[in-house]
Amino acid sequence: MSDVENARHKERAQRHKAVVDAKIAAAQEDKGLLLVLTGNGKGKSSSAFGMVARTLGYGRKAAVFQFIKGAENVGERAFFSRHPDVIWEKCGEGFTWETQDRERDIAAARAGWEQAKVALADPSISLIVLDELTYLVTYRYLELGEIMPAILARPAMQHVVITGRAAHDDLIEAADTVSAIRDVKHAFRAGVRAQEGIDR
Amino acid sequence: MSDVENARHKERAQRHKAVVDAKIAAAQEDKGLLLVLTGNGKGKSSSAFGMVARTLGYGRKAAVFQFIKGAENVGERAFFSRHPDVIWEKCGEGFTWETQDRERDIAAARAGWEQAKVALADPSISLIVLDELTYLVTYRYLELGEIMPAILARPAMQHVVITGRAAHDDLIEAADTVSAIRDVKHAFRAGVRAQEGIDR
Repeated sequence: MSDVENARHKERAQRHKAVVDAKIAAAQEDKGLLLVLTGNGKGKSSSAFGMVARTLGYGRKAAVFQFIKGAENVGERAFFSRHPDVIWEKCGEGFTWETQDRERDIAAARAGWEQAKVALADPSISLIVLDELTYLVTYRYLELGEIMPAILARPAMQHVVITGRAAHDDLIEAADTVSAIRDVKHAFRAGVRAQEGIDR
Repeated sequence: MSDVENARHKERAQRHKAVVDAKIAAAQEDKGLLLVLTGNGKGKSSSAFGMVARTLGYGRKAAVFQFIKGAENVGERAFFSRHPDVIWEKCGEGFTWETQDRERDIAAARAGWEQAKVALADPSISLIVLDELTYLVTYRYLELGEIMPAILARPAMQHVVITGRAAHDDLIEAADTVSAIRDVKHAFRAGVRAQEGIDR
């Protein structure tokens, strides 16, 4: 690039920086966020686990409640559950069509939710992941009217991440950050099974 | 629920299980996947870091190349870079409007890409994250014609995750799994700055 082009680039970059800096200056609040990761695409739970890693990187504590996941020994649990700053609770035994026992699924979900409520009242826990919580609402294992008060009354600086397809409108309304992950393409449809390290 | 309702539920669950089982039986291939996480929403890089955690959970190795991220000591780097099975390379000093020096940015991107190519030829690395690689293409720091051959020639079981907004069509075409993360709502627009453990 010529000196003239470089100078122009620098001028454009300076203008862009001024705009970005102004936006950053306008955002100065710190608060515990409610995040919802929904949609049919790959990346909802893995994104939540990335935030667990970030949280641990600051020396803070995280708690993960896996509401649906079955018994198979998946990578995220093998990795995080042995970390001293992580609470890891498996609260389900698979999707309802796998267990085929609705009463048992409801009991497992409710027991998990009771544990999650304890974490939601504990200000020493910086991040709580309620993995696949949306299905509990969809299947009517739990009512939103039971879930929302505990989430809204949590400690001011505690972050909560909820994952799962078809998040309820009230949940989206209450959330600070919502990402809808669209499934553009998935290897599973091309005949590739769930890969260790990627899908589980 | 009554016994009749429970029996109906079980029957529906069994039919559903038969459908799901048939789909799972049809997907039996194992292969190294190319995943692209794009779109403007929150969750692209954090999802990639979740897959790093999953990979480590199986005792496998991962390599992360952060092409844009600035010098600030973010949570994911603090957490993963000290892990013995992780290669962590920071290949940028921030977005171009921050550095305001295009020549230096290009040099950093190219040096990072040379390191990534070494990892892309190493079958002992199970997962490679090319974090924010899409911007290198958008800014024309690197051409896709340079990037794609190394990705396509990688070891058969090696997974690659590419993150960043506005992924190029050729990249999406070549990928096995693509998620487009839509920004439904973001706390930043409500005046909340980037929160430790969540956004960085």
